Amino acid sequence: MPKLWNDTIDAHRREVRAATMEAAAALVAEQGLRAVTMSRVAEKAGIGRATLYKYFPDVETILRAWHERQIATHLDHLTRAREGAEGPAGRLEAVLRTYALVAHHTGRHHDTELAAFLHRDEQVAQARQQLHAMIRDLLQEGATAGVVRGDIIPDELTAYCLHSLSASAGLPTTDAVERLVAVTLAGLRPPG
Amino acid sequence: MPKLWNDTIDAHRREVRAATMEAAAALVAEQGLRAVTMSRVAEKAGIGRATLYKYFPDVETILRAWHERQIATHLDHLTRAREGAEGPAGRLEAVLRTYALVAHHTGRHHDTELAAFLHRDEQVAQARQQLHAMIRDLLQEGATAGVVRGDIIPDELTAYCLHSLSASAGLPTTDAVERLVAVTLAGLRPPG
Repeated sequence: MPKLWNDTIDAHRREVRAATMEAAAALVAEQGLRAVTMSRVAEKAGIGRATLYKYFPDVETILRAWHERQIATHLDHLTRAREGAEGPAGRLEAVLRTYALVAHHTGRHHDTELAAFLHRDEQVAQARQQLHAMIRDLLQEGATAGVVRGDIIPDELTAYCLHSLSASAGLPTTDAVERLVAVTLAGLRPPG
Repeated sequence: MPKLWNDTIDAHRREVRAATMEAAAALVAEQGLRAVTMSRVAEKAGIGRATLYKYFPDVETILRAWHERQIATHLDHLTRAREGAEGPAGRLEAVLRTYALVAHHTGRHHDTELAAFLHRDEQVAQARQQLHAMIRDLLQEGATAGVVRGDIIPDELTAYCLHSLSASAGLPTTDAVERLVAVTLAGLRPPG
């Protein structure tokens, strides 16, 4: 087969995978984790059941793949936010704001059984470590530059930031999220 | 029967109830929720299985009763902390510190299936509302006195406090908890 044909097949396969993952995630959001079956995912994704089984062996695997892609997207947003900002204070603020907005938009998932299912995943522990390391490094950079308090180790300040900003999930508007980011940053400033 | 005799029976019943609840909670901590049976609770509490059934119909009821008592104890600690402190800033600091220390000491439960089981309870939603209201009122009092920022509504600042201080559960020492309380309070001060 010519290379172009292989590329087309690859693109098609990626689209089917993506449609399947979106369908499974949407079904869980609508009907709950237990209600989702391979047949319903196939129907929702607009593909045959036999085709679906060529891509994924079961619903759990689809949801894990979906979640893995979500996590990669979120970490990518944070990295872009960091790279698009200037100076230690600017980078810290950009990353914390992006994290808070992601928590705000995905917050509704986090009360569900889906969260309980997914968060047992090793993938999540790794992503959390990457997130923690990214923010810790920004806090360290900020402390060196004198814009973040240097009397408390960055690991502890990171825990403060991540917990504080997780309140975003329950906030009603993005304006409220902005205020939460401002309050959180105020807690990080050098005292006195 | 003379009144004294009734009092003695009441005291005895309260002791058996308390011993049973402690036994059930300890078993869950040691062996996990699924492993706990009425027989094991009776054995651990040092009472007969038939006696246990005179007090509680099943393990779930024992754990809910235990949790209800825990919540009441924690809310009582917070109320005492508030009443033992002086001035708006002092009261706020005392209540936030007490909350952080409770979160620190009970933190280990909160990763477990026990937490998932208990937190579906209506009791917990009510306690959370009481906690939220207590802190919101202290923030309002602080804003009126000029020691808390008045540019953000107390409900949003309460969400910030509770989420930020929930980081206590993962902190290694009470010194680290004190630092978290200091950072959280710094975020609440009037800007500028």
